[in-house]
Amino acid sequence: MSKELKVRAEIRGAVLIGAEDATTTDTFRAVDPASGAALEPAFSAAGTDEVAAACALADAAFPSFSESTPEVRAGFLDTVAAAVGDLGESLIERAIAETGLPRARLEGERARTIGQLRLFANVVRAGDWVQATIDPAQPKRTPLPRPDLRRRHVALGSVAVFGASNFPLAFSVAGGDTASALAAGCPVVVKGHPAHPGTGELVARAVRAAVAASGLHPGVFSYLPGPSNALGTALVADSRIKAVGFTGSRGGGLALLRVAAGRPEPIPVYAEMSAVNPVLLLPGALRARSAALAAGFVQSLTLGAGQFCTNPGLLIGIAGSDVEAFAQAAATAIRESAPHAMLTADIRARFEHGVAAMAGRPGVTVAARGEKAGPGGAPAALLRTDGARFLADPGLADEMFGPAAILVAAADLDEVNRIIAALPGQLTATLHLDRADEHIAAGLVPALARKAGRILANGWPTGVEVAPAMVHGGPFPATSDGRTTSVGTLAIERFLRPVCYQDLPEALLPQPLRPDNPWHLTRRVDGTLSPTFDR
Amino acid sequence: MSKELKVRAEIRGAVLIGAEDATTTDTFRAVDPASGAALEPAFSAAGTDEVAAACALADAAFPSFSESTPEVRAGFLDTVAAAVGDLGESLIERAIAETGLPRARLEGERARTIGQLRLFANVVRAGDWVQATIDPAQPKRTPLPRPDLRRRHVALGSVAVFGASNFPLAFSVAGGDTASALAAGCPVVVKGHPAHPGTGELVARAVRAAVAASGLHPGVFSYLPGPSNALGTALVADSRIKAVGFTGSRGGGLALLRVAAGRPEPIPVYAEMSAVNPVLLLPGALRARSAALAAGFVQSLTLGAGQFCTNPGLLIGIAGSDVEAFAQAAATAIRESAPHAMLTADIRARFEHGVAAMAGRPGVTVAARGEKAGPGGAPAALLRTDGARFLADPGLADEMFGPAAILVAAADLDEVNRIIAALPGQLTATLHLDRADEHIAAGLVPALARKAGRILANGWPTGVEVAPAMVHGGPFPATSDGRTTSVGTLAIERFLRPVCYQDLPEALLPQPLRPDNPWHLTRRVDGTLSPTFDR
Repeated sequence: MSKELKVRAEIRGAVLIGAEDATTTDTFRAVDPASGAALEPAFSAAGTDEVAAACALADAAFPSFSESTPEVRAGFLDTVAAAVGDLGESLIERAIAETGLPRARLEGERARTIGQLRLFANVVRAGDWVQATIDPAQPKRTPLPRPDLRRRHVALGSVAVFGASNFPLAFSVAGGDTASALAAGCPVVVKGHPAHPGTGELVARAVRAAVAASGLHPGVFSYLPGPSNALGTALVADSRIKAVGFTGSRGGGLALLRVAAGRPEPIPVYAEMSAVNPVLLLPGALRARSAALAAGFVQSLTLGAGQFCTNPGLLIGIAGSDVEAFAQAAATAIRESAPHAMLTADIRARFEHGVAAMAGRPGVTVAARGEKAGPGGAPAALLRTDGARFLADPGLADEMFGPAAILVAAADLDEVNRIIAALPGQLTATLHLDRADEHIAAGLVPALARKAGRILANGWPTGVEVAPAMVHGGPFPATSDGRTTSVGTLAIERFLRPVCYQDLPEALLPQPLRPDNPWHLTRRVDGTLSPTFDR
Repeated sequence: MSKELKVRAEIRGAVLIGAEDATTTDTFRAVDPASGAALEPAFSAAGTDEVAAACALADAAFPSFSESTPEVRAGFLDTVAAAVGDLGESLIERAIAETGLPRARLEGERARTIGQLRLFANVVRAGDWVQATIDPAQPKRTPLPRPDLRRRHVALGSVAVFGASNFPLAFSVAGGDTASALAAGCPVVVKGHPAHPGTGELVARAVRAAVAASGLHPGVFSYLPGPSNALGTALVADSRIKAVGFTGSRGGGLALLRVAAGRPEPIPVYAEMSAVNPVLLLPGALRARSAALAAGFVQSLTLGAGQFCTNPGLLIGIAGSDVEAFAQAAATAIRESAPHAMLTADIRARFEHGVAAMAGRPGVTVAARGEKAGPGGAPAALLRTDGARFLADPGLADEMFGPAAILVAAADLDEVNRIIAALPGQLTATLHLDRADEHIAAGLVPALARKAGRILANGWPTGVEVAPAMVHGGPFPATSDGRTTSVGTLAIERFLRPVCYQDLPEALLPQPLRPDNPWHLTRRVDGTLSPTFDR
């Protein structure tokens, strides 16, 4: 089955349609965000022909890939992980050039990407995703006999994945959406983000090499880079695509949602869009450690130039001297913070525009801006307002993507509760509390759980652990679908659907439902979990 | 906690908003479908005021109901079951008058409705729906410590349920959608079907009595009857509604889907819409028992006047003398079948129009129609065409809701495969086969599993078992969301979302995630299921 893995760290500027390279006459270039200089080489932008070719190939790959055994699919994911690792230094260097992100961050992100692929390999092997369920026949039941019913989950179909600008590895070509869709048995067509086309192509070639080494149909993976919205629209509109994974702006996510809903066959879109990730500074915590909280906040806010979905963009405290002490300490740290280059000139322009627009709203003041210079850097910002103003102006809850936050001084706990109730859906909500605050927090946690996918205590929301219990999701508009997560093992469920088999002869049953249980699954039989112990 | 259950089998023609009755000036009446006579009393039609009042009350009930313990919620569902039973003969008599369905069918449907409520009570108690998952902290992990992460599933929000005409009990006011939404902890606002408003009100009063007896917030359940599409639209558009359950026509389902997608906050719609439920008659089975297959087919086709989502509306065989023998036997049985009254005059008119339109398409012939008369009855119909014609005309795969099917004689197995590939999504797909057909069937089963939510062998698709392994769902347009089922225990997952708690002090954790596991759940700890044995 498995052949030798051959990964070539080549950047040819090509579109990768299964095993074939394609080129187009419509080209674009990557830009070094620190210098603004265009990088070599020119990249072919995929168009509608390439979308159609990649989707046809994915469709052809679906029958065999979706029914591949856990061992084959897990082996493939492990091989993708190895292949990404084999890209070595060339991947890191190219990613630094295209994104301006620091080496340590990109090395960490690579480790996370590889770890995520291996985690999903283990998820596939463990087989709980199959949800194998058997209700044996009851031929003597009255008034009617019960048939033999067996259920499993199977792959939904081919999946379109949109690479994210802010995670060029972990949420791009072979990132979390791709890993979970492949784990589910879905062929993947990636729309490559134009901000890191060379990084994308390197990883795409690694995935392709793993497809070949695993003996899979070449249509299991294709890579369509390009700068136009039309490319993404064409991909989501293709009838052979059955689900979409997206991480990006609210505008982009909503546009894809409209395309998906307007298809003759609507399909699910898992878009992770925007959040301000409210942080509640409770009185006891503020009293005990306002300076430490300010330091932790600014560190989280400015990490990666604030270009995280979980960036803490909204702080809420009850007005008083402790909030003032926090604000002063935070303002000092903001002024002294070193600016990092943002991912693209466009993101930086939108950040500056967003901060200026927010600062211009009635009742908003600028408490501090970063004062240091840096190439392509975006100075951090802390804005302030009060609770009444925040409640009166829903625009104050909008995301400023980058290192900017607004501190809201609420009049009292009642106003804090009203602010929480008025918030749109969020990825995270954080409480900073001391033991003395627990009686307050007990009332806030259920309200926050209705607004966010993850509740944190005494931490900062940046840094998303890839683990079974993780939820990186949340009610609209944080995501388009609050029933799921895009990080963690649960993400595989986004790309599965249940199928029931009634009274099928043994020979016709799919393997995970056969009496001899060849996949050694833990199955639910007559309502009770039946683990296997023979593995 | 629990008070005495008092169920009054009263029909007042009211709108039930929580614990209050409301009346409106806009009234409508039920009609006896057998006689066409209007029935007493007049019913108030709910309007936008009643929608707003019911949704506000549901929203107010959400915090307490969604966090109610499994014992409370399960006890409530058991009480609803008891209350529906307490309605006794008055429920059956009213349902017969309003639907024309036979007594035995309605008694069976009542038993199923009660059984379904009790099943979900047990699902709630077992607690697997919580998906409690704990990844303990790893404070010494390098390079970064792992936080303590705990995940559970919680109720999505208030749910709008649309009563279905064809299951006045099991898929109406206290049917499968309501039972699974309540089980998930979601308050329910039912839009009552205008074809059985008295039946609906009786059941609604039973649910209300159970809400009161269980000491729950009255907003947990409201009932809005009415004949207008505007009522349903207003309900789905209400910002406090977070999901929709619907069983009905494709037109109705797609309209609600558009309303839901067009909201400022889009919400999931679980619409079970239409299917023709292909039945493949394989050569060996046809040769061995064409007469028995024809008898079984006509019995399934005419059951309940064909008004089932799983009605076998499409038969496919390979042309030859065995198909002809089947067709002749089926035609004879169709001619002799006794017509049942259809649910409404409108449904009957659409059925007749649908059969006439199908019969008028090129290449379609009428093999037989029922020849017996009956009050309000719809004579069954068998149409015929060949495989080439079927492939050329996608309209031949449209549903004729009622006792009508089309038999397609395919040229060969290759054409059968192309017919399957061309089919739209289905609820079910059935194979009739003998042992000699298994080599053919082995190739067909995976293709059918891509098209349908349930695959049957040597049975008929009508009759949907309520069980853990059941899937009553399927790819679009059979449903709006092929990732789920509307029958069986899995249906609860439609109304849940995951929430993760990171590093929360024990006192702030929700009960199912506390170290002492007060709900006695089977939890996944560090990736491994940890059953409890103390219950």
